[in-house]
Amino acid sequence: MKIHDISMLIHPDMLVYPGNPAPRIDQYKNVQDDGINESSLFLGMHTGTHVDARLHIEKGGAGVAELPLESFYGPCVVLDMTRHGRQITAEHLKNEDVHKDLIVLLKTENSLKGYDRFREDYAHLTADGAAYLAKQQVKTVGVDYLSVEPFESGMKVHLTLVPAMTVFEGLDLRDISAGKYIFLGLPLRINTDGAPARAILISP
Amino acid sequence: MKIHDISMLIHPDMLVYPGNPAPRIDQYKNVQDDGINESSLFLGMHTGTHVDARLHIEKGGAGVAELPLESFYGPCVVLDMTRHGRQITAEHLKNEDVHKDLIVLLKTENSLKGYDRFREDYAHLTADGAAYLAKQQVKTVGVDYLSVEPFESGMKVHLTLVPAMTVFEGLDLRDISAGKYIFLGLPLRINTDGAPARAILISP
Repeated sequence: MKIHDISMLIHPDMLVYPGNPAPRIDQYKNVQDDGINESSLFLGMHTGTHVDARLHIEKGGAGVAELPLESFYGPCVVLDMTRHGRQITAEHLKNEDVHKDLIVLLKTENSLKGYDRFREDYAHLTADGAAYLAKQQVKTVGVDYLSVEPFESGMKVHLTLVPAMTVFEGLDLRDISAGKYIFLGLPLRINTDGAPARAILISP
Repeated sequence: MKIHDISMLIHPDMLVYPGNPAPRIDQYKNVQDDGINESSLFLGMHTGTHVDARLHIEKGGAGVAELPLESFYGPCVVLDMTRHGRQITAEHLKNEDVHKDLIVLLKTENSLKGYDRFREDYAHLTADGAAYLAKQQVKTVGVDYLSVEPFESGMKVHLTLVPAMTVFEGLDLRDISAGKYIFLGLPLRINTDGAPARAILISP
């Protein structure tokens, strides 16, 4: 059994979406004086690897703690979308085996370009791509950038995806080959609009 | 397949260990004005359900991001320790099937008393109980209170357990029966002394 970490490391200098706060770590106890090291963390709920909840897009919508546990675990496919450029459409997805209750991770050209700085031209789902995933009733989708949506273009993709399935953003798929895995992705249990998560893949 | 959530809900009024900060959630964008809700979280790294790393007890020790992924997932036993009072000893553990590479969760009288307020007399492992788990080479241990150690009594239990295995504290086992499960517990990927985690159990 080989386990792959597909989570971004949380640290003060990490990539964040424009307008989101940078994480801050503060140590408030140390071994020399207190016998133990202890620290605190401040971060935006859409930092690094995270999930979105309906509360992100709807006033009074359900928070992260209400997402179904079943959507955090199960058979998964990593689809190679690296050759399709910036827009991942229904047409691209129709060529793949995408079915009910599957967890689908999209590896795009973002994984080739890396995460050293924010790129406004990141690869993303189109609205028709999102609608196709919803129609196929996949239970969870994951993307390799901080948003499923084109930069500064409204919330059309979110409005289609988030009510229909669990959405992981900010997965690090750089070292992951396309294929089948078991996915485990667990966000913190908190009733906010989003929440940071740890996600791993298990090779069959 | 039945999935049980064994994580504490993170919220501002939750139980925290004395001297640890209370969590704070701040909303910095809202749907009416910004088109989306977004919020930030401040919390201590030993809040609610969390793991400890060697950095918690050793200057320059390894942080949470260096814990082995294998210790986050696998066969698990929930042991019924509810009748043994405050001190869980090697003697209690020797009566159970505790072996190499198992994940062992200790359900104590803490799960009967609940988490409405901090109790200094919480049930905990003794140093000889910790040494027994280390000798048996269990890969992960989890407890149903915020610390494995008696209140204000040094770090003897931590010093035995943390270098030997992955340690989850603050699991909520109130609704969990003793028996065998698959455990999934994922802390945030961050290189601090501890980190909040989500943990679930899967019934066979």
